Amino acid sequence: MSHRSVAEAENCRLVRVELADRSYDIEIGRDLLPKIGEKFTSLFPGAKAAIITDNTVAGLHLETVEASLSKAGVEYHAIELPAGEKTKSYDGLTFACDAVLDTRLERGDLVIALGGGVIGDLAGFVAGIIRRGMRFVQIPTTLLSQVDSSVGGKTGINSGHGKNLIGLFHQPSLVLADTAVLDTLPRRDFAAGYAEMAKYGLINDPDFFVWLEANWQDVFAGGSAREEAIARSCQAKADVVAADELENGQRALLNLGHTFGHALEGMAEYDAERLVHGEGVAIGMVLAHEFSVRLGLCDPAVTDRVIAHLKDVGLPTGIDEIPGQKPNAELLMDFIAQDKKVSRGNLTFILTRGLGQSYVEKSVDPVAVKDFLTEKLA
Amino acid sequence: MSHRSVAEAENCRLVRVELADRSYDIEIGRDLLPKIGEKFTSLFPGAKAAIITDNTVAGLHLETVEASLSKAGVEYHAIELPAGEKTKSYDGLTFACDAVLDTRLERGDLVIALGGGVIGDLAGFVAGIIRRGMRFVQIPTTLLSQVDSSVGGKTGINSGHGKNLIGLFHQPSLVLADTAVLDTLPRRDFAAGYAEMAKYGLINDPDFFVWLEANWQDVFAGGSAREEAIARSCQAKADVVAADELENGQRALLNLGHTFGHALEGMAEYDAERLVHGEGVAIGMVLAHEFSVRLGLCDPAVTDRVIAHLKDVGLPTGIDEIPGQKPNAELLMDFIAQDKKVSRGNLTFILTRGLGQSYVEKSVDPVAVKDFLTEKLA
Ligand SMILES: NC(=O)c1ccc[n+]([C@@H]2O[C@H](COP(=O)([O-])OP(=O)(O)OC[C@H]3O[C@@H](n4cnc5c(N)ncnc54)[C@H](O)[C@@H]3O)[C@@H](O)[C@H]2O)c1
Ligand SMILES: NC(=O)c1ccc[n+]([C@@H]2O[C@H](COP(=O)([O-])OP(=O)(O)OC[C@H]3O[C@@H](n4cnc5c(N)ncnc54)[C@H](O)[C@@H]3O)[C@@H](O)[C@H]2O)c1
Ligand SMILES: [Zn+2]
Ligand SMILES: [Zn+2]
Repeated sequence: MSHRSVAEAENCRLVRVELADRSYDIEIGRDLLPKIGEKFTSLFPGAKAAIITDNTVAGLHLETVEASLSKAGVEYHAIELPAGEKTKSYDGLTFACDAVLDTRLERGDLVIALGGGVIGDLAGFVAGIIRRGMRFVQIPTTLLSQVDSSVGGKTGINSGHGKNLIGLFHQPSLVLADTAVLDTLPRRDFAAGYAEMAKYGLINDPDFFVWLEANWQDVFAGGSAREEAIARSCQAKADVVAADELENGQRALLNLGHTFGHALEGMAEYDAERLVHGEGVAIGMVLAHEFSVRLGLCDPAVTDRVIAHLKDVGLPTGIDEIPGQKPNAELLMDFIAQDKKVSRGNLTFILTRGLGQSYVEKSVDPVAVKDFLTEKLA
Repeated sequence: MSHRSVAEAENCRLVRVELADRSYDIEIGRDLLPKIGEKFTSLFPGAKAAIITDNTVAGLHLETVEASLSKAGVEYHAIELPAGEKTKSYDGLTFACDAVLDTRLERGDLVIALGGGVIGDLAGFVAGIIRRGMRFVQIPTTLLSQVDSSVGGKTGINSGHGKNLIGLFHQPSLVLADTAVLDTLPRRDFAAGYAEMAKYGLINDPDFFVWLEANWQDVFAGGSAREEAIARSCQAKADVVAADELENGQRALLNLGHTFGHALEGMAEYDAERLVHGEGVAIGMVLAHEFSVRLGLCDPAVTDRVIAHLKDVGLPTGIDEIPGQKPNAELLMDFIAQDKKVSRGNLTFILTRGLGQSYVEKSVDPVAVKDFLTEKLA
């Protein structure tokens, strides 16, 4: 139907990440995967590709990508890793580096990350360190990766000491966010990605948060609000990244909910059965609001509103909702101290003064955090 | 004797690497190690340090460094790895990253590389990827690392596919080259470093090569020619690096002898008993000259002169001097093809038109190289 075609065309959106000679486009729209071959031959003529993906995504979407690349005559190799956070490890890194070197690709060829944030972070890191830097393209397939991890060039792996402690900044050459691939995403993962979306509202865009309160069902259902919400999120992230690529200042705002969230993920041993990243962020954002209330910075009604919306979409909002052994404050403080947002003993947290009024607070007293957590866990 | 003290003071030299906000100093002189504590408290007040070193260097020089840091009140942790090229591996990387994370150092703290090129390359890489980039200081303890690997920010490890295939550019904040530590270096390693020194002459400074022909005994003996030769070498490298930090063009000149040399190292399985890096470079430089002669670019008398000087200082100059199984041309070509200086099937080599007249040749026919090697190995 021509009406639908026009709507689809309208729903194809472009966001530009402005970083001087490292600038790149994020394309957002339905059914971009089948067109990837053409896109590559026009943007990267002559380049070969190593597709890094996980076995779940491979089963669902790799054939579409391969068919399109083959049709366009692009030489490619597919490298599959196990799905899950454990792939973002030294072992995953070694395996992926060796696999890319096996393909004999050269510096000007491309690494393609086809998957969620785990694959994007790993593949981006691999691309950053093979031959001291290959080009790479992000094809995020989860909502979280489409609105967050694929944009901005943060790449890396976890160590036993904590999340993302090993890695580097390496910007992609292109991000392709095909919103149709999200139709195969389990609802729980969709909700987890939604937490990062809500985050952009809570950072500095209360209107967007209000818009989400009204439109979230359509975002989940795959209506046109989905592309709108993803594009707005990418634009929000692109703006922050353009202003502060290497996180020396305002980029830290993107960590709203993440210091607590990472600690919870570490405590849950990165076990996706218990907690996925976005769920940790949802609980972490609630904790950040509650901690801000406790410090007298923020009206408790704001926290209630945030909790209500996150609950509506099916996200956890309290530590007690994490199945398994209950953490203690000491263990969480240990993870928090290992988080990279630490400077000379003081903790940096993103706190808030109201709905969508977050700011970077660099001198948070660890004792206050511990007291707060001890009470929450009592 | 006051005459000698004055001479020593004169022999303390400073070379600046100009890289905008990543500029740094190389200090060259006798007995800098005992002064490192003072230097740190003045240059990096409040910073803690993780010293990465190997067990050989630790036995010889770590105590001096530790005593100086302790005296100045600098908090430090020492991390020891086995000596040898095998430490520049995925396993060495994992071990060193975890050990640094164990120390709980923060982003503004320092990683110190105390050792030869192996430790410098590994520690620089570790510093580059922990928390997406820590500061680091190079304290090179071999001649090779003082004149070459500690300057310019190339860091990395080897993979089974070849040397230095995994890594990144990460500039140090300071390089301290204490020429007295070279007194404990075995002659064979000193000679290996000397090959890189001679390289600067052969690239574009025939006067320096002639100077070395006249002064090499004093360089080896630890006379004042040593500081002079090291400073001239560092200046030569600093100039190239300042002009082309990321090796998009002229920096490739520094690879004179290295494409052949790396292939020989791979062929000898990075076994230091058989071949160390600088020896591979010495043979590689001879091969580059011979190949240039074969292509009609260079007078054979130049090659003879180069061979004569390298022989004088005790360096190997032919593949047949490498103990163990003789390589075949196919195997060497395989390693050459995996070298990172490959672009779209053509090989890049540094060739020469005469003494100190090297240039980057990007369109070398692999068949010509293979024929040349087959003949040499016949
Ligand atoms: N680099 C950054 O800036 C940044 C930002 C936020 C999060 N992250 C990282 O992202 C990671 C989390 O990302 P994630 O939530 O995408 O995790 P993920 O990559 O593990 O994906 C979640 C699950 O969904 C599956 N999946 C992916 N696409 C699918 C699809 N279209 N249909 C069905 N299943 C699909 C995956 O196989 C996996 O099992 C964390 O490691 C986090 O640290 C990075
Ligand atoms: N990053 C660069 O730009 C660059 C340039 C050239 C070479 N490299 C790398 O450098 C490495 C070779 O460096 P290297 O020759 O210094 O090797 P190395 O670090 O292995 O040192 C050689 C040996 O000397 C010992 N040693 C070090 N200092 C000593 C001292 N003062 N007294 C006695 N023994 C000492 C070491 O323990 C080791 O056994 C190779 O891995 C090569 O790829 C890197
Ligand atoms: Zn996140
Ligand atoms: Zn070298």
